[in-house]
Amino acid sequence: MNDYRSVRVAVLGAGTVGSQVAAVLLERREELARRIGADIELVGVAVRRLDAPRDRELPRELLTTDAESLVLRADIVIELMGGIEPAKSLIERAIDGGADVVTGNKALIAAHGTELFERAERVGAAVYYEAAVAAAIPIIRPLRESLAGDNVTRILAIVNGSTNFILDRMHRFGDSAEAAQATALELGYLEADPTLDVEGYDAAQKAAILASLAFHTEIPADAVYREGITSVTADQVESARQAGYVIKLLAIVEKAVDADGAAGVSVRVYPALLNADHPLASVHGGNNAVFVEAEMAGPLMFYGAGAGGQETASAVLGDTVSAARRHVAGGPGIASSTHAELPVLPIGLVRTRYYITLTVTDRPGVLADVAGVFSRGGVSVQTVRQDVAEGDTAGTATLVIGTHAAGEAALRETVAALADNASVVGVESVLRVEGAE
Amino acid sequence: MNDYRSVRVAVLGAGTVGSQVAAVLLERREELARRIGADIELVGVAVRRLDAPRDRELPRELLTTDAESLVLRADIVIELMGGIEPAKSLIERAIDGGADVVTGNKALIAAHGTELFERAERVGAAVYYEAAVAAAIPIIRPLRESLAGDNVTRILAIVNGSTNFILDRMHRFGDSAEAAQATALELGYLEADPTLDVEGYDAAQKAAILASLAFHTEIPADAVYREGITSVTADQVESARQAGYVIKLLAIVEKAVDADGAAGVSVRVYPALLNADHPLASVHGGNNAVFVEAEMAGPLMFYGAGAGGQETASAVLGDTVSAARRHVAGGPGIASSTHAELPVLPIGLVRTRYYITLTVTDRPGVLADVAGVFSRGGVSVQTVRQDVAEGDTAGTATLVIGTHAAGEAALRETVAALADNASVVGVESVLRVEGAE
Repeated sequence: MNDYRSVRVAVLGAGTVGSQVAAVLLERREELARRIGADIELVGVAVRRLDAPRDRELPRELLTTDAESLVLRADIVIELMGGIEPAKSLIERAIDGGADVVTGNKALIAAHGTELFERAERVGAAVYYEAAVAAAIPIIRPLRESLAGDNVTRILAIVNGSTNFILDRMHRFGDSAEAAQATALELGYLEADPTLDVEGYDAAQKAAILASLAFHTEIPADAVYREGITSVTADQVESARQAGYVIKLLAIVEKAVDADGAAGVSVRVYPALLNADHPLASVHGGNNAVFVEAEMAGPLMFYGAGAGGQETASAVLGDTVSAARRHVAGGPGIASSTHAELPVLPIGLVRTRYYITLTVTDRPGVLADVAGVFSRGGVSVQTVRQDVAEGDTAGTATLVIGTHAAGEAALRETVAALADNASVVGVESVLRVEGAE
Repeated sequence: MNDYRSVRVAVLGAGTVGSQVAAVLLERREELARRIGADIELVGVAVRRLDAPRDRELPRELLTTDAESLVLRADIVIELMGGIEPAKSLIERAIDGGADVVTGNKALIAAHGTELFERAERVGAAVYYEAAVAAAIPIIRPLRESLAGDNVTRILAIVNGSTNFILDRMHRFGDSAEAAQATALELGYLEADPTLDVEGYDAAQKAAILASLAFHTEIPADAVYREGITSVTADQVESARQAGYVIKLLAIVEKAVDADGAAGVSVRVYPALLNADHPLASVHGGNNAVFVEAEMAGPLMFYGAGAGGQETASAVLGDTVSAARRHVAGGPGIASSTHAELPVLPIGLVRTRYYITLTVTDRPGVLADVAGVFSRGGVSVQTVRQDVAEGDTAGTATLVIGTHAAGEAALRETVAALADNASVVGVESVLRVEGAE
């Protein structure tokens, strides 16, 4: 490879993804050189413990515990440690030294992305982060570049494989929430502490990243309205299934207007009903999919594995090849773009549809009574289904009510008024319906 | 916009896509400038006739019939004329003058892509062509960049919306081939001369482009094995539907080995059976989808509209923004990569599965007779279904035979032997099955 220039690459972190990336950089060195037009030299892999067991064995002489020195010896720094610190400080150090950065760190990008992109832009470096959302599914690059001349209006996305696995088990196999979660844990879809996944924090970070890109606006993860899947029951899933719906944990980002008609952005994560014929409804198991609607392009969908060491490594290596090509030929990285500065609208301003299950007393006049609550709340009813449970002796019935689109605030007030209504024994379930026109 | 640098853009062709692109460049000039960090100045639109009617009205002073002069006044030339000449000469002239080129011209890229990319590389220019395959669906950029560190093993794609519309009508509405084609023509899915679509030429061009990118190998369109949909009948579609299949016109590119085990590439377009639960099976109407399998990333799917002026314009504008960003900051375009130089294998070496419908004489021993033909041909039978048509008085029966995977050459010889067999009245239908393991 004497006629190639050389690009020095450092990998920070040798966990599942990091050790895979480092191993591939070594194994496929010649093939990558041909694709890039330059040799990729792996100058070191920063680890916490030199003798820890790893998924892929790496040459001992490449390992170092001195990440701070390593980042200054590289043209491209691949950060796969995760978490905010020391990842952030090391990335800053790499950028200040003029290196490009490739990272899969969604927490860091969601919290400090704009700051890091601007820091990189000042020195002519670039930050690549395709692996931060939906693993190997190309979604960052399409949003940043392919749709750069179009206007995204809405994204509906399944970006957390663990919760999709759980909800899919419940939907397709009739598992209880507990059983589905136990299976997810057993098969490695969930961490020992599942909070980040099941409470929607992971999806909210990814929603923030997608929204920032789609709307050219800095959107921090804590501005994302978030509900997890812990309240979703097997009964809800079954009832949804019978009505032609699937329950999915959706990350939703869309352009919206506030009460005065001023433009804003809504970014939210919650379990919602999707029509069974929506393209996202057939995303099974631990897979991810991102459904993008743009003004000119119309609806697009990107589908694939949302996690996994190999899959994430594929995205990291794609970014690394891009960064290396740029390094060889000089020139720009992909610039950050937050010029739009749209406000994030509070959840109360979002317009959505509710799907409400009530237990009511089974006597004449109840339906009129309940309908009156919706009417006074300014919420229009689209569908009503009444079930009397078999063998019911308590004198109660079940009402399932689907609303037309209404403001979230009005819907919440209506649900509160239903709970207080004398005809209503209990509000059993409230879910939003998404993905319809 | 005084503090912005300026990028001069010329548009060649003002048809459906060209007039849309030019109009958006004018309408969204300020927003695009913010995204790019530079003003985009539309310096002219080359047309054949100054006074022709257009989808989008354009300022008269921008129109010119002198494309040759126009391309020398631009930093980015957007070619949307279609066809080989004069598009090729104008692009060469633009490249030689140092301009970047954005094109949606699949015929030109399939026939002369590598030549144009190399010409551009010599002068430090770049050629972008996201719009050449599957309109607004980002597939070129993901293959060129996102998967640049991975190895694509196979692509199954629906890349011709017209034929997908026709086959979908036949499958979902029971239309005859003639009725479906008439509807496609009426709704604008087909040109007055439908040959390019229905005979698979359009899909073959796109298959060649995808294969070149996926396998880093120059693959001309005429190296693609091609069958169109003109032989597909309503009976075949219905029989496939009953057996749990959908017939789709597939573009298939995959790594394969020849008889000696040497690596090669198979690139082919034909109508094939897909299992109804394959993700491509639910691609309806005029939509496109590209299903990519890569070593590390696993299966990925990209889905969206495969045609349309607005949709294609979205892809063209995304490329234009990318080219403009690169122009402002200097630096590399996306390089071509054909270093792998894999041979394209002849169709006879491809391994596939056949789904064969035979009319046979209805007497004892026929099944053994037919099975013997398969056995002697070295083709293993997976499924057999025998139907006696209602009210059949001719003493014939229908045999539907699904084979295991076998070489195309062996399968063809077996079908020929079946046609010659005394028990076989007629070979009614032969289709390949794709998308299975």
